[in-house]
Amino acid sequence: MSDINKLVQFIRVEFNRSLKLFPLPNKPEYLYDPIKFALKGKGKRFRPILIHLSGKAFKTDPDIIMKVSLAVELLHCFTLIHDDIMDSDNLRRNMPTLHHQFDTSSAILAGDGMFTISQLILNSIENKPDAFMQHYNETVLEICEGQALDKHFEELDDISIDMYTDMVEKKTGALLGACFYLPAVISGKSNDEIEKIKYVGRQLGIAFQIQDDLFEIFEDENVMGKSLGSDIFSNKKTAIAIEAKNRNKTEWDSIIRQFDGKDLENIRKFLLENNVKDKVETLAEHYFSSAYSELLALGFDNDSDTYKFFKMIQGRHS
Amino acid sequence: MSDINKLVQFIRVEFNRSLKLFPLPNKPEYLYDPIKFALKGKGKRFRPILIHLSGKAFKTDPDIIMKVSLAVELLHCFTLIHDDIMDSDNLRRNMPTLHHQFDTSSAILAGDGMFTISQLILNSIENKPDAFMQHYNETVLEICEGQALDKHFEELDDISIDMYTDMVEKKTGALLGACFYLPAVISGKSNDEIEKIKYVGRQLGIAFQIQDDLFEIFEDENVMGKSLGSDIFSNKKTAIAIEAKNRNKTEWDSIIRQFDGKDLENIRKFLLENNVKDKVETLAEHYFSSAYSELLALGFDNDSDTYKFFKMIQGRHS
Repeated sequence: MSDINKLVQFIRVEFNRSLKLFPLPNKPEYLYDPIKFALKGKGKRFRPILIHLSGKAFKTDPDIIMKVSLAVELLHCFTLIHDDIMDSDNLRRNMPTLHHQFDTSSAILAGDGMFTISQLILNSIENKPDAFMQHYNETVLEICEGQALDKHFEELDDISIDMYTDMVEKKTGALLGACFYLPAVISGKSNDEIEKIKYVGRQLGIAFQIQDDLFEIFEDENVMGKSLGSDIFSNKKTAIAIEAKNRNKTEWDSIIRQFDGKDLENIRKFLLENNVKDKVETLAEHYFSSAYSELLALGFDNDSDTYKFFKMIQGRHS
Repeated sequence: MSDINKLVQFIRVEFNRSLKLFPLPNKPEYLYDPIKFALKGKGKRFRPILIHLSGKAFKTDPDIIMKVSLAVELLHCFTLIHDDIMDSDNLRRNMPTLHHQFDTSSAILAGDGMFTISQLILNSIENKPDAFMQHYNETVLEICEGQALDKHFEELDDISIDMYTDMVEKKTGALLGACFYLPAVISGKSNDEIEKIKYVGRQLGIAFQIQDDLFEIFEDENVMGKSLGSDIFSNKKTAIAIEAKNRNKTEWDSIIRQFDGKDLENIRKFLLENNVKDKVETLAEHYFSSAYSELLALGFDNDSDTYKFFKMIQGRHS
């Protein structure tokens, strides 16, 4: 295992240990049982890892870094739970989604509770700059805006790639940006630096989401831990769907009409033959490159853990 | 109009003006249109009024007080929106509930957004004690716990009055407590004082909720702005339902089985003839009395605005 792989694995184990030890009340069970169930999911912990690496680079207190990573992972889980209700998704990370395992009311409330606990964890950090919570909640509001655009786009026919990247920058980029800049805020970096740091994370987030759109069609269902093609099936405007329509609207619409939500063969064939897969891969590559060059401009070198972790994300297979 | 009525009306008008002027983005409409719709509701603004009166008594900066009251009202609206989804309620304050007017996804997201904006408003208060946000979010978590108990109790048969008051202390009392103690935290009161102040608000909250249970059966539907009897119909364990069952379980169960969700005549008759109404009124009175005496013990006199406002709440008719 390479050094960066070992480091990432070490952070993941430490993070999971902290999450497991995190004190949650037992009662009322109606609130805390679903929360505990949600936190048992085997997330890849990309966000906590990014926070730990960024915190190390910005020399942030390790105890604070652990708190920030717990808060952000709870926030992330909360948004997934509410998104899954809105999208009627039944499977996530190889486990039933929360509203499917319990019911919609429990899942709404569990999400609200996790969001509140996330705030409480951050509130408990002493001597933090006033701007810290403000930055955090601005990020959350942007995630809400991204989800709103995503839902709104379902009803629209003509979504451009620019509208799409604006949406995923909010829905996914904002939080990856936060993972990268929150430790910097704690460490007292200047506003100018924080804006640059934020930008790197956001570019990474856009790349990450475009990659996810590709996985949703071309990955192995068991690796993904959820049924594939569901975004296409529910008329989500993914990078794939937009570029496919740009290439040949009539044929794409016909393939989608015939799609049963399971058999991806015709969809994959179309995307390969019409170079849509290539084009979307190039788009992801563009945002990864932008993230790398901005990272280097910030003084990270290509031997740094953060740079290597970005490369690891780019090379992931789900 | 009495002085306290004039004062309360003045605060309400000022608060509504601030709420109307509160800057909300227009886009994405999917997020902000439902939020704007929700804020157009004609709430009685009990919580903002309590915050302003408490802030005046504790000599808190008026600009900060307005921020706290906006944040708490947004929080309150958010919890109502999510509760209405969980309870499948279609009418609130004479208007369609948010998930009924839009859809469940929009209402979940609007609630999340309003909660986040509530945090942002409080985050923007400068030089506040570290404990302020911690207190606030502990209150929110307690409200979630109260809602969890309320939902859980729907499935249970034997709920005692003590279990009920524990539930409403969390669901309603915690926030009324916060209205009363948050200004005190800003004004730098000692922990000991804050605990006492919090207790007064919580007692008031329990009384307030028991009163609401009575209104749900005995008020005029047009005054209440929602259909009556819906809590009974959905097997909510209100003070009324618990005491009715204690009085004569067989007869009460039979009346409830025959209840069509609309015609309250038999229910009212039973509650009057079996002194259930009297008993629940006495229970509300007990908690009001407790709130009054603790308020006086804190140094408020019975000529103070706060004392008079408590009396006004007790005398309200919805």
